[in-house]
Amino acid sequence: MNVPAAEERVTKMSRTQEKSIEDDEINLFNPAILDRLPISHVSGLLIMPLRSTDYDKGFLVLLSQLTDVGNVTKEQFLNRFYSMKTAGGYYVVVIEDVNSGKVIACASLVVEQKFIHNCSLRGRLEDVVVNNNYRGQSLGKLVVTIVAQLARYFHCYKLSLDCVDRLVPFYENIGFKRETNNANYLNMRFHSENATEQSRL
Amino acid sequence: MNVPAAEERVTKMSRTQEKSIEDDEINLFNPAILDRLPISHVSGLLIMPLRSTDYDKGFLVLLSQLTDVGNVTKEQFLNRFYSMKTAGGYYVVVIEDVNSGKVIACASLVVEQKFIHNCSLRGRLEDVVVNNNYRGQSLGKLVVTIVAQLARYFHCYKLSLDCVDRLVPFYENIGFKRETNNANYLNMRFHSENATEQSRL
Repeated sequence: MNVPAAEERVTKMSRTQEKSIEDDEINLFNPAILDRLPISHVSGLLIMPLRSTDYDKGFLVLLSQLTDVGNVTKEQFLNRFYSMKTAGGYYVVVIEDVNSGKVIACASLVVEQKFIHNCSLRGRLEDVVVNNNYRGQSLGKLVVTIVAQLARYFHCYKLSLDCVDRLVPFYENIGFKRETNNANYLNMRFHSENATEQSRL
Repeated sequence: MNVPAAEERVTKMSRTQEKSIEDDEINLFNPAILDRLPISHVSGLLIMPLRSTDYDKGFLVLLSQLTDVGNVTKEQFLNRFYSMKTAGGYYVVVIEDVNSGKVIACASLVVEQKFIHNCSLRGRLEDVVVNNNYRGQSLGKLVVTIVAQLARYFHCYKLSLDCVDRLVPFYENIGFKRETNNANYLNMRFHSENATEQSRL
């Protein structure tokens, strides 16, 4: 008989399921939302939510052009990805070069729930980066504009950002403002041993 | 016989359960966390997480000393409260005057999950306010210090804030810094119709 024994069948099923889970492309947020925005598409580039498969498409390598990322394993990436998805409020937008299959730009909208302003929502622009090899094509402006459209779509009362001096003109050009008497960003930094994945949250 | 009919018993039980649900004091986060911090307690004042009962203790009235809160009903407050609790990452600390039974100061730690810095966490100090009648007792410094201790407890790599010019010295005195070339806070504000509770998130 060609029918495998029960145990063997179970093993085969498990392997199939495992592969399926590993290969399934999960979106951080509903991609249909992006279809509802007036996005200027560029030939050869895909604009989409961060996906569970983007670890292998160089998402963290791209982020390392912005700041220190560290040695994040695929498992750690997926843990963070699903933790964000479960919490809600995280909208990481990525741009993929169809030819290379790599993520070459990204920006995040992080939505904070408030009690003030009639229990409103506040948006924050975070972690904007464009691959060095793709600079000069206004992709930074494109991905930031998409985040601003998302913030408006979610009815945020404002979208804010913190940035270094040299980037102020870039963001002002997109429509952000240093408001009179209200443009201060202050930090309290903790010891470097805090910059590790933690479990207390 | 004094035993009520089955239907009557059910009605009585429902009423009891209703009352119990309404009166249950739910904490936004585990209050035991505050016990683990080196907090300087003040006689006559309780320091605790925001509770589901704080609507009736003047929490929103207090917030209205900071900015526009609007006409938020108890139901809207509770919806936002439980939405924050479900999402996680929201740590609203309140100070209650034991004599008046009112919330007289508050500050929030909002924790953002990151991929950068080894999938670390970033803290934000939000919505700090002390009742006008309690100014001059360093309660602002107390509640901000507690938020900073919470951020350190949760292993945030930094705690940041945005503020108006006149508050910069206050926060610098507590340990926040305007970093060289990196102290810019910019805003994009949306139409006022966005400042309402929404359902798209």
